[in-house]
Formats: sequence, C-alpha cells, structure tokens
Amino acid sequence: METLRAIVTRRKTLKYKPSGPLSKTARTDLLRAAMSAPSAGKKKPWHFVVLEEDEALRELTGLLRERDSLHSAAMATVVCADAKEQEHMGHWAIDCSAATQNLILAAHDKGLGSAWLRIFPSKSRMKVVGEFLDLPDHVSAFSVVFVGEAKQPLTERAAALQAERAHWGRW
Amino acid sequence: METLRAIVTRRKTLKYKPSGPLSKTARTDLLRAAMSAPSAGKKKPWHFVVLEEDEALRELTGLLRERDSLHSAAMATVVCADAKEQEHMGHWAIDCSAATQNLILAAHDKGLGSAWLRIFPSKSRMKVVGEFLDLPDHVSAFSVVFVGEAKQPLTERAAALQAERAHWGRW
Repeated sequence: METLRAIVTRRKTLKYKPSGPLSKTARTDLLRAAMSAPSAGKKKPWHFVVLEEDEALRELTGLLRERDSLHSAAMATVVCADAKEQEHMGHWAIDCSAATQNLILAAHDKGLGSAWLRIFPSKSRMKVVGEFLDLPDHVSAFSVVFVGEAKQPLTERAAALQAERAHWGRW
Repeated sequence: METLRAIVTRRKTLKYKPSGPLSKTARTDLLRAAMSAPSAGKKKPWHFVVLEEDEALRELTGLLRERDSLHSAAMATVVCADAKEQEHMGHWAIDCSAATQNLILAAHDKGLGSAWLRIFPSKSRMKVVGEFLDLPDHVSAFSVVFVGEAKQPLTERAAALQAERAHWGRW
C-alpha cells in the first residue's frame, strides 16, 4: 500500500478473527519496521517480546483489564525499553513510540488490524506486565500491540485534516 | 512508495539544497499524515507551527545550536502539545512522537529529506523554542522536523534487523 494512504487510513482494530499465527515473513517485516524507527543516539533502547500462544494473549488481556476480544489476535508484541541503553525515560519513550507507530503502520500495510495499547506511563501497568514477562529490573514495558485479522474489514476512511491545529510562521 | 519500503529506508537528512517552498499539496499531505497518528483519548494534544521563511529557519537552527546546513531546508515544522487537551506529559509525548514519525515517513514517501530534532524532554530547548514562537504557557514545543530537498540523494539502505532485540514468548 502507498505510504500516505497507509498513514491516513490506519485505525485501531478491537475485534479479531481467530486465526493461526502470522507467517514468519510477516512477523519479521513487522519487527524490522519497528526497529527502523529513529532513536535519540546511536544506542537503540527497544526490545520486543512477541507472544503468540492463545493462553498468553488471554492472560495479558486480563492483566491489563482490556476487552476480551483482543485475545483473538494472532500476536501481541510488547515493546520494551532497556534503561541501560538510554537512561532518560523521556528519550526512550520517544524512541519506543516511533517504533510502535512503525509497527502498526506495517501491520495495516499488510492488511492486518492492530491495536496499540499503552503500558507506560502507568506505573501499575508497567509493573504487572514486567512481572508477567519476567523483565529484568532495567527493562520497562512501554506498549503492547495486538495484530491479527480484523473481524470486520476496515472501511477506508481517512482521518480529517484539523486545519485549526496548523499555525503559519508563529503561534 | 510502498509503506514498508518507506519505513525501512528512511534516514535523517542533515544537508539540504536551497529551494523554494513546498507545494501546498505537499504541505497539506505532511500535516495530514502527522494528524493521522493515534492518540491517548479522543482529545488530540498536537499543534503544528510551520516555518518557511529563510530567516526563521536560520534563527531556529541557531537557537537550538544545530548545524547550519539545516536552515537550507524548505520548511521546519514545530510539533507542539497543548496541556489543556491532555494533562499527562507521558501521554502527549507519545502522541506527538507518533505524529512526528508519520510526518517524516510522509516526507520520505514524497522523495523529500527530513530531520527530526528533539526539543522535549530538554527544558532549556522547550523554553527557548516556546519564547521564539510565542507559545502560550499551556503549550509545549515537543520536536522540530526540517523537510526539504536533500543535497545528495539518499542511497536506499534498509535498516538492519536486530535479531537479538526480539524475544519469543517471554524475555
């Protein structure tokens, strides 16, 4: 799909069709897209924990108190940040956001639905996911992205341009 | 350009060919892409201040102590966040990151170079840019994106997949 079209037509998918796991190519493309985001310095803070087992998706959805329908997705990827690679949380949060955005765009490009759920900045969500995934102390869960076949195909509706949010020359 | 190709081949451009302003269509496409990012709630925190005057780009580059070559870009867009729309800086920083990522991807898609420079989380950079743009107190400068014709065409080199950053099933 053309980049601009992918960017403006992407939307969050909350209901998934139960399906098998994604192909290895699809998984690799999604992770490669995420890892192509820019980062604050040469050190990239991100790590990705990929969950595909139905039981794991169900447990994660429950822990986060998110809606049940999400666990039918084919995959959940927890985007994490390693504080050893980048100490300032302002910077790793920015890098991980850009990586997450790339991931959902790549999923949309492949005709897959996705949902970006936030973990950071909620301390309780970071704790619960960190324990669930056995993350080391220096690693923080930042976001989780569910990806899979949408139960209903997305209608291709582009986001509206908010003209009042653009300022020319100064505020 | 295909979405995945745009995502993995995008890189930062630091040297620009002096040129006229971007077309209105190009400007609109870039802003529309930025505004198509997901946000924490229904309220979107972002505002975009677009600078095109040579003098303004020169001044901004100087204030940020960034390299001179950037001011030859056709446009600089300062991505800002309105704390009235979203109070938690963790959330607006995430939304503005996703918007900034969309903006640089859309520029690359159009064959334009771009450079994402951080303002947040540096308090001194936020202050200096806020004063320069006359931002109201509840509005924070988050990032600035320079866009223009690259002095040298980018060689299309895809970012490497960092296999050691992917974890399967658990950490």
